[in-house]
Amino acid sequence: MDAPIAKLPPPPYYAVIFTSLRTDGDSGYDAMGDRMFTLAQQQDGFLGFESVRDGLGITISYWRDLESIRAWRAHAEHLEAQRLGREQWYSAYSLRVAKVEYSHDWPARQI
Amino acid sequence: MDAPIAKLPPPPYYAVIFTSLRTDGDSGYDAMGDRMFTLAQQQDGFLGFESVRDGLGITISYWRDLESIRAWRAHAEHLEAQRLGREQWYSAYSLRVAKVEYSHDWPARQI
Repeated sequence: MDAPIAKLPPPPYYAVIFTSLRTDGDSGYDAMGDRMFTLAQQQDGFLGFESVRDGLGITISYWRDLESIRAWRAHAEHLEAQRLGREQWYSAYSLRVAKVEYSHDWPARQI
Repeated sequence: MDAPIAKLPPPPYYAVIFTSLRTDGDSGYDAMGDRMFTLAQQQDGFLGFESVRDGLGITISYWRDLESIRAWRAHAEHLEAQRLGREQWYSAYSLRVAKVEYSHDWPARQI
């Protein structure tokens, strides 16, 4: 599930910033994370993904538009993962939806 | 420099998403990181900060508006840190400026 720096098209596009603190133990968390990453990649409008955890976890998924974000939020398997997240895996989280207006890559990238 | 989930006002506000890969060694990186965090907090329009590294690093700073982001980017000490970052500390990075349109905290927060 580790991802490098995402290679994305030029803006505008959307970022879903998910910042979280975990409860103790795994309880299927890693397997579900892998499944959600695989599933997200298959969704229309998915552009990329960055994720790191060291105590605090930050996962950012990138999407073409708000419609593709809404469709992903309402995906049946994802809804179940969201429910389990609140019940078992997270002690707290914040979700922020943001429109990327500007980006800069160093070293410069060929797209 | 470790930060928990940022407590932010209701949107809209801006996020600067800085995703990076480090070179080997410290070379003053941690000290500069601490200094930049302290300095950023003193800037007009600074709202909050989230940062994690485990190989990939994701640092998100939150700002009131584009003007405050521009002023911080042009701050003399920060410009020097940016120069050292390219010369010494980072093998690659991406910087994305995004307007946060929606946020959701769980458990719900009193603001």
